[in-house]
Amino acid sequence: MSEARDNLVRQAGRLLGELRAKRPLVQNITNFVSMDIAANVLLAVGASPAMVHAPEESPDFLTLAQALVINIGTLSAPWVESMEVAAKAARSLGKPWVLDPVGAGATGFRDSAVKKLIAHRPQVIRGNASEIMAVARVAGLTQENVKPKGVDSQNSSAEAEDFARALAVHLHCTIAATGAIDFITDGTNEIRLANGSPLMARVTAVGCSLSALVGAFVGIERDAFLATQSALAIYGVAGEMAGEIAIRPGSFRTAFIDALDAIGPDDLQTRLRVIAA
Amino acid sequence: MSEARDNLVRQAGRLLGELRAKRPLVQNITNFVSMDIAANVLLAVGASPAMVHAPEESPDFLTLAQALVINIGTLSAPWVESMEVAAKAARSLGKPWVLDPVGAGATGFRDSAVKKLIAHRPQVIRGNASEIMAVARVAGLTQENVKPKGVDSQNSSAEAEDFARALAVHLHCTIAATGAIDFITDGTNEIRLANGSPLMARVTAVGCSLSALVGAFVGIERDAFLATQSALAIYGVAGEMAGEIAIRPGSFRTAFIDALDAIGPDDLQTRLRVIAA
Amino acid sequence: MSEARDNLVRQAGRLLGELRAKRPLVQNITNFVSMDIAANVLLAVGASPAMVHAPEESPDFLTLAQALVINIGTLSAPWVESMEVAAKAARSLGKPWVLDPVGAGATGFRDSAVKKLIAHRPQVIRGNASEIMAVARVAGLTQENVKPKGVDSQNSSAEAEDFARALAVHLHCTIAATGAIDFITDGTNEIRLANGSPLMARVTAVGCSLSALVGAFVGIERDAFLATQSALAIYGVAGEMAGEIAIRPGSFRTAFIDALDAIGPDDLQTRLRVIAA
Repeated sequence: MSEARDNLVRQAGRLLGELRAKRPLVQNITNFVSMDIAANVLLAVGASPAMVHAPEESPDFLTLAQALVINIGTLSAPWVESMEVAAKAARSLGKPWVLDPVGAGATGFRDSAVKKLIAHRPQVIRGNASEIMAVARVAGLTQENVKPKGVDSQNSSAEAEDFARALAVHLHCTIAATGAIDFITDGTNEIRLANGSPLMARVTAVGCSLSALVGAFVGIERDAFLATQSALAIYGVAGEMAGEIAIRPGSFRTAFIDALDAIGPDDLQTRLRVIAA
Repeated sequence: MSEARDNLVRQAGRLLGELRAKRPLVQNITNFVSMDIAANVLLAVGASPAMVHAPEESPDFLTLAQALVINIGTLSAPWVESMEVAAKAARSLGKPWVLDPVGAGATGFRDSAVKKLIAHRPQVIRGNASEIMAVARVAGLTQENVKPKGVDSQNSSAEAEDFARALAVHLHCTIAATGAIDFITDGTNEIRLANGSPLMARVTAVGCSLSALVGAFVGIERDAFLATQSALAIYGVAGEMAGEIAIRPGSFRTAFIDALDAIGPDDLQTRLRVIAA
Repeated sequence: MSEARDNLVRQAGRLLGELRAKRPLVQNITNFVSMDIAANVLLAVGASPAMVHAPEESPDFLTLAQALVINIGTLSAPWVESMEVAAKAARSLGKPWVLDPVGAGATGFRDSAVKKLIAHRPQVIRGNASEIMAVARVAGLTQENVKPKGVDSQNSSAEAEDFARALAVHLHCTIAATGAIDFITDGTNEIRLANGSPLMARVTAVGCSLSALVGAFVGIERDAFLATQSALAIYGVAGEMAGEIAIRPGSFRTAFIDALDAIGPDDLQTRLRVIAA
């Protein structure tokens, strides 16, 4: 893994510097719970957030933005319409966009929204393992489409990886299934990252905010697989840094935002963990 | 009071452990101001929050949840509809639900929403004294329905308690009128708790988040009167713990979330204050 | 500048005390990103926030409030209607109201909302330099209407000041163009303040929350020019105090809310910077 690690340390460090220099404008159509923290995550790392969802202005606004992030938490029918208008505009303007399929699989309404949105071809889909598997099913993939790889396919994590790979191929996009171990694949290449802190799951919308950060990176780097890895590497390492400052969720949230401001290439060099399957 | 106190210390400690083991999923239809902090309060204590409001998916989602919380802050006509659909579904699925009547009494629109919602029989209503009195009036109770109990009924706190008791009987539910002293009644039994910190009123949506926490406890304990007392006991004691760490509202908020994570049965034993009328 | 400074130190100190005594109720129709922090800013300084937007109750609620703040971030067609209803009610009830034209100039939809809202005559408009210039253009002012004042009019800051003055005259209101230097004018009088911290731009919705605070001050002081200066003076000085406690955005946010609670007349006396053009 040392070559993959060295490469990611170098590239993520370079992109972090570029992001801070360019301050990409990221348009977010996201859920009400995540708006505050997602905007603060983007500002802390060095990007420029905008929460804009009205279909009347979304396409106009997107001409000013470097990327779009759509997150389906706190969904409602009018917001699904907004999301479709924005995703369609992103595609026609050639702006990269990221889908966060919050709660995919939980209700038919949610899956129907996912189905409409993936038709507009996101560059990246980021979710937890069960959300990624739910999106794969919505996309029509079944266990039979998914070629198990290796002997571990019985365990749920390996099963999620199989679905992620198949989904990446099917939608020609990058898939990030995040958790204690983050798995990122474009269908051909793949990488596993193992930083972070258990406290990241104890603060609301930390996953949603990661999707927003992936948006910032695809806004400055056309290679979505590289952009996604870089965002996840930086996020996980910052989480680990914060976990050394704070041991409870209230103070962890504060420390995490601070760490996203403080983090630099050296922290990636010292801390990044790339692991084998 | 020592028997009531001993009993609550024991039961609240037991339920806190159960909540952390079971991690009940609590569906919240709440106001925009409270979404972040309510979700973080639930996560800190050990429950699992979901903010889901669309009528298209609310009944489906509720089949997965252990309880529902409806909070009428930042109300609008479409959200009133969402709330009615969810409350009705909760009743028909036999899922317990909690009403937070934010700002009841302030406008006719708000009172009309309360009227529609109480028809679906919440297990618990939590508000401040004036909100509880406003709900009682919406429910058709007047000063004449309310039998004053004891000599103190002239003071506003005792008046609120009279209305709370009458409302509990009228709606067959548990009423919690919270403030410097929390009064909880199911119409027959009652208890007063006196923990907390004045800083809890200096941070937005701390009351709303308490209603969310009551939802988590009714999600694991069918006795709504016991569940409500336990939630309020834990919340007040955590507030007191936070007030020893932080003396201003910004740092208090952080310390309070940390305290909800840190709190254990011993803290209840040491600190809980149950008081006489 | 020492006379203007002495005067503002005295008046802002006096109004801060009055605000804490009267706890004005400020109705906010604001964006989803800012709701949490704006409410917490109001509570920390000593005002009483309410986030109420439904057209069905807005006029009723406004009879209870001392002021209204309308902020057009996260705009949508139904919210524009809500804002118009509320602004109209404020005008007819004689309640002061503040407009925060977030993102004015970015899209036609946004500018059309601004056009509708300024017809209801806000007492104060607070935005950054480019937003103020965009509002001026929406109001029909062009470079030709704006008489450049002084030799520096080629630089963008001076240009924004020229537009701000012309807009103040045109709408008979107070304009605050805030940034590293805050410029406040009622068309005749003007003042420039130079407190604050660069970290204020690294936390989301700090500008939105300042508009909310201006609402609190116009709720207790009919002289909108004085009320606006006072709010900005207190906010900037609190930002500076926080910047001495925290050097990164997560902890700065916490320290800033604490500073708004801690700030007193002495801090204004020691720290306020009023500067010449």
